[in-house]
Amino acid sequence: MTAGSRSEPIEAESSLSHPPVERLAIVGLGLIGSSVGLACRARGLTTEIRGADIVPDHRAHAVELGVVDLAFADTAAAIEGADMVLLAVPVGSMIPLLEQIVPHLAPGAVVTDVGSVKGVVAAAMERLLPSGNGVPGHPIAGRETSGPRAASADLFSGAKCILTPTHHTDVRATARVRGLWRAVGAEVLQMRPECHDEIFAAISHLPHIVAYALMGAILDLEGGENLQALAGGGLRDFSRVAMSHPVMWRDICLTNRAPILKMIGRFQGVLSDLAAMISAGDGEGLERQFARVRACREDLGNGNERSDSGHPG
Amino acid sequence: MTAGSRSEPIEAESSLSHPPVERLAIVGLGLIGSSVGLACRARGLTTEIRGADIVPDHRAHAVELGVVDLAFADTAAAIEGADMVLLAVPVGSMIPLLEQIVPHLAPGAVVTDVGSVKGVVAAAMERLLPSGNGVPGHPIAGRETSGPRAASADLFSGAKCILTPTHHTDVRATARVRGLWRAVGAEVLQMRPECHDEIFAAISHLPHIVAYALMGAILDLEGGENLQALAGGGLRDFSRVAMSHPVMWRDICLTNRAPILKMIGRFQGVLSDLAAMISAGDGEGLERQFARVRACREDLGNGNERSDSGHPG
Repeated sequence: MTAGSRSEPIEAESSLSHPPVERLAIVGLGLIGSSVGLACRARGLTTEIRGADIVPDHRAHAVELGVVDLAFADTAAAIEGADMVLLAVPVGSMIPLLEQIVPHLAPGAVVTDVGSVKGVVAAAMERLLPSGNGVPGHPIAGRETSGPRAASADLFSGAKCILTPTHHTDVRATARVRGLWRAVGAEVLQMRPECHDEIFAAISHLPHIVAYALMGAILDLEGGENLQALAGGGLRDFSRVAMSHPVMWRDICLTNRAPILKMIGRFQGVLSDLAAMISAGDGEGLERQFARVRACREDLGNGNERSDSGHPG
Repeated sequence: MTAGSRSEPIEAESSLSHPPVERLAIVGLGLIGSSVGLACRARGLTTEIRGADIVPDHRAHAVELGVVDLAFADTAAAIEGADMVLLAVPVGSMIPLLEQIVPHLAPGAVVTDVGSVKGVVAAAMERLLPSGNGVPGHPIAGRETSGPRAASADLFSGAKCILTPTHHTDVRATARVRGLWRAVGAEVLQMRPECHDEIFAAISHLPHIVAYALMGAILDLEGGENLQALAGGGLRDFSRVAMSHPVMWRDICLTNRAPILKMIGRFQGVLSDLAAMISAGDGEGLERQFARVRACREDLGNGNERSDSGHPG
């Protein structure tokens, strides 16, 4: 569970000899924010956890379930005196939220986030946190369900968490955030924000948008809703992906436009090629394309059966 | 388990008072063919089952596992004296197989199939079985794995099976096939072959082709194979669908061309609309589209968690 059990060099390892965080503030008590709270409490990583959420039910459930010690509607009150602030709101709300909290941060407080797009967050942190205490992050975990009631102390066990510090980020701040994620069971990777956004446009944003488009095309058919009752597992997998939160996906689309549009273009090209083969009756070409994909999926294996379609993995 | 427990009118119900089949011949001992064999044996529905397969391992395993009493490389030998013949081969092999078996069929033998495209099969049965003893069928069941070793006596329990008899099909033949599927636990639906093919182009063929195209577009990226290691459940769902058998899908694409191309066109239109919204920064439009799909999926529910991505559901 501790970072010390890993073989790569660890910075600021001493921060793990005592709780890595004294007072943690979690802004946004949805599935991810609440799971971080539960995971920290279960492992004794924090002295106190305060939460903020604009939804009264989220606040009530989070206190009830022991996600946080105290929950506030007022973000400034929640982050008062916190030495680490975790922002767990949809990506589109991240920058206004950062602007709002900066005047209220305790001196030296580290700010991190869990957004699915990192370029815009990294740029905003550079601009708004000149001390370098902003560490952009993205845990690859989630469920179809949302809110504090869906949270789990083990959501991040064995999951990956990507941090995207820039040359401007303080290395001690990065080390503290890394220590927190490792302590809740995640494997922490580090890459440049632009690199993260290109990769996730391909492996997460494109699949979700394609799933929405596919389900949309079927719903457009006469009696489309009823057709699904005849569907097998294939369509059910797609429709599960399309269950993800509309606001979260709207924000992802709007904050990672260029990489997403590039991947949609590439995908449309491959699909048009398949359509041309179908139209021309090119069985050999179709079989070759299908076999290639299958071979690669066999390489991927089934190591991690975690379902995270609810959160942008 | 018996058809008599259903409320709709049943034809030829008397056929269920004794085993609905005396000697069943199963041509193609893959997952579906072998599961029919196991299901019939487990329920005592047949006196004898003979199988045919060109793969020696399939024959050996099918006998070993009790899928069939006898397995043959020679299809003519397997169907000799059979009163029901089930064709369980990829759709592209169905017509040559029908042509090959017709001279060897016992008088009055009923022929049915499990192919995922029904128009071509129904037309071939009309042409080659003038007695009307050909009953096109499509059980909506399957797994990611294939071959007799993946077979299960309960694969069809609670599954749907669609029969697509034409005005030319003998009603007693249809009743016998319906009786067999009901006896192995399936819910039997009936529709016109063209109707089946349009529906399945939308809810099964399109999703599979889209999954192949999506995985292909990701593999085309530099280091695409490795990117998948970072992926969450969303991509894993897609890649699971793309695990399906390349030859089966090649055949489906080639035998259901027009409905599939029509659906690809519709899907590309919806995706282009989403891309235009992303490009224009139309957050309201995106959220509306995403929310619409999510609402419909909630209606669909999770009644049937059966996985059938391996077989075209």
